Amino acid sequence: MARKSNKNANIKDVAALAGVSIATVSRFLNGNLGRMSAATAAKVQDAITKLNYVPNSVARQMITRSSKLVAVIVANIDDYFSTELFKGISSILESQGYIGVLFDANADIEREKTLLRAIGSHQFDGLLLQSFSNPQTVQEILHQQMPVVSVDREMDACPWPQVITDNFQAAQEATEYFGRQGYTHVVVLTSELDLSRTRQERYRGILSAAQDVDVLEVSEASYNHSEVHQRLTALIHKSDQKTVVFALKERWLLEFFPNLIISGLIDNQEVTATGFADTDFIRRMEPKLTLITQNPFLMGASSAEIMLRELNGEHVAPDRMIIPAKLQ
Amino acid sequence: MARKSNKNANIKDVAALAGVSIATVSRFLNGNLGRMSAATAAKVQDAITKLNYVPNSVARQMITRSSKLVAVIVANIDDYFSTELFKGISSILESQGYIGVLFDANADIEREKTLLRAIGSHQFDGLLLQSFSNPQTVQEILHQQMPVVSVDREMDACPWPQVITDNFQAAQEATEYFGRQGYTHVVVLTSELDLSRTRQERYRGILSAAQDVDVLEVSEASYNHSEVHQRLTALIHKSDQKTVVFALKERWLLEFFPNLIISGLIDNQEVTATGFADTDFIRRMEPKLTLITQNPFLMGASSAEIMLRELNGEHVAPDRMIIPAKLQ
Repeated sequence: MARKSNKNANIKDVAALAGVSIATVSRFLNGNLGRMSAATAAKVQDAITKLNYVPNSVARQMITRSSKLVAVIVANIDDYFSTELFKGISSILESQGYIGVLFDANADIEREKTLLRAIGSHQFDGLLLQSFSNPQTVQEILHQQMPVVSVDREMDACPWPQVITDNFQAAQEATEYFGRQGYTHVVVLTSELDLSRTRQERYRGILSAAQDVDVLEVSEASYNHSEVHQRLTALIHKSDQKTVVFALKERWLLEFFPNLIISGLIDNQEVTATGFADTDFIRRMEPKLTLITQNPFLMGASSAEIMLRELNGEHVAPDRMIIPAKLQ
Repeated sequence: MARKSNKNANIKDVAALAGVSIATVSRFLNGNLGRMSAATAAKVQDAITKLNYVPNSVARQMITRSSKLVAVIVANIDDYFSTELFKGISSILESQGYIGVLFDANADIEREKTLLRAIGSHQFDGLLLQSFSNPQTVQEILHQQMPVVSVDREMDACPWPQVITDNFQAAQEATEYFGRQGYTHVVVLTSELDLSRTRQERYRGILSAAQDVDVLEVSEASYNHSEVHQRLTALIHKSDQKTVVFALKERWLLEFFPNLIISGLIDNQEVTATGFADTDFIRRMEPKLTLITQNPFLMGASSAEIMLRELNGEHVAPDRMIIPAKLQ
C-alpha cells in the first residue's frame, strides 16, 4: 500500500505548493511544531502527501551533521524513576524540536556497552546518560565527539555535566526526621549494597544519623517473597525501640510495604516506614507514610536544559547540579 | 577528553590489527555479539581504540540501507504493559543484532504523529507500533517503505501483521468465572470508554456475560482520588448481590484496590475484585485476587519475531496473531 516515492520533488516544491517558507517545511520535517499553527502544519503535510515527497534525511544529516535526535540511555524502564526521567528530558527537548530516543540498559552493564557502541556509530546529536559504566569506558566505547550529560548516577572525574540528587543528605535528613519522632531503630531494606554507589550513599546517610540500624539485603536476581517478609517482620520486632523501616529502592517498598500495612504492623505508632518513592501508590494507602521523592521528572528536564545549551553551541562546564530530594 | 578521530583507519585496518575477519568487525560494530567470544570482542574493541577508528555509519547506511536500529513506538512508558512490551521486543531483536529504539507517545496522538514523522525521515530498518492512529494515517505520515508490525491495539483494514489480545473474550471469560462463584453484580472501573477501542471491547465482553453491571468512568486528565473511592464504595453496596469490582486498566487497579483491601471491603466473600494486571504488586496482597494477565513480554517478543522475518526478506501476510490472556 505504501506509494512509490517521487524522487524529483524537493523541499522547495513542498514549500511552493504549501505556500510557506522552506524554513517552515524544514521545521515541520524536524517535528519542530512549537510555533506552527495546526493550519500551516496541515498545509505542509498536504503538500508532502500530494508531491509524495520523501526527505532524504540521511543525506541531509551528512551535510548538516544534525539528526535532531538525542539518545537517552536509562538504567531500567521497569523503574518509574527511569521513565519519569525520560519524560522530563523529552518534554524539554521537544521545546526546541529535538526528539528524545530511549535506550533501555535493562539493568545490565554489558547491554549498556552494546547500546553505547550503537549510539556511537549512528548520528545522534547528543547523549543523556543514567549510566552504570564509568566516564572513561563510556568515552572509549562511544568513540565519537558528541555532547554528553550524565543524570542520577554520580560519577567521579566526569568530563561532562551531571545532574544528581544528594543521596547521602536525603537519607540522613529523613533518618534525623524520624529520630525526632522517636523512631530510633532503623531497618534498612535494600538490594545488594556493594552493587550500587547510590545505595551505599543512602546507607551511609542513615548510619550518620542513627545508632540502632539493621540491614536486610535482598538479591534482585533471586529472592523468596514470603521469606523476605518474615525476616523483615523479625527485624522489626528485634528492638524494643520504635522502628522505622527504610527502603532504599522503590521496588522493595512497593513489594513489601502493602502487606506490612494490611497486617497492621505499620501503625505509625510503634512502627512506621519510609523510603525513596516516586510513584503515588504507597502514598495513597492508609495510614499515610512520609516518603522521600527525588523528582525524576525535574532531574530529567534539568539535564535536557543543559543538553540544549550544548546543542546551541555553548560549552557547559562539567559541574554537578544537585536537585534536592524532598521528604513529604 | 574525546580524541580526534583518525579518518584514515578503516574497517580492514581494524580487522587486520585485531586478527579477525571484516565480517567479525562488522558484527561487532552492529552490536551483534551473540556468537562472539568476549576475547574476540575485546580484541576488536582494542584495535578500534588503538586506531581510533570511527565507523562512518551514516555513509554505510546510504550503501547498505540498514541501520540495524528498529523503531518502537509505545503508548505510554508509565504503563508497565508498554515497558514489558518493549522488553519482549528488545530481547528478540538483539538475538539477530538489531537494537530496539524506544519512542514514547506519552498517550498523545499528536505526539505520536510527530514521532512517526521523525522515524519516517530517518534510517530505521523497521517499525513496531502500539498505535493510537489508524493505519492510513500512519502510512501517510511515515511516508517511507519499511516493515511495520502492529502490537496490542487492534486495527481494521491493517496492511501489516498485528499481534493482539482478544480483549472481548478475556473480559467475557473472567466475568463468567466470577459469575460461577456467585459474583453476579459487576462494578466496572475504567477510563473514558469512548476514548479506547480496547476498553470498549473489554466492556462488551463483560456485558455479554453479566446482567447486573454498573460502570464508574474516571477521567485520566482530572479526578479526585477520595471522591472516586467513595463512588466506588457506594456502587459496591448498591446491589444485594455478591459483587466483583472489574478494573479495565491496571492504573486504576493499582490506585484504588489497595485501600478497598485495607478497609476490609474486598474480603473474597461478599466482594472480590479483578482486572487486567501485569505487575505483581496487587497479586502479592492478602486476600489473593484472581486477575487477568496479557503477557505483554510475549506479545512484544512475538511481534519482534514477525519483524525479524520481514527484515530477513520474507513477506509476512497482514494476519492477526492472538496471544490469549490468562486468568490467574
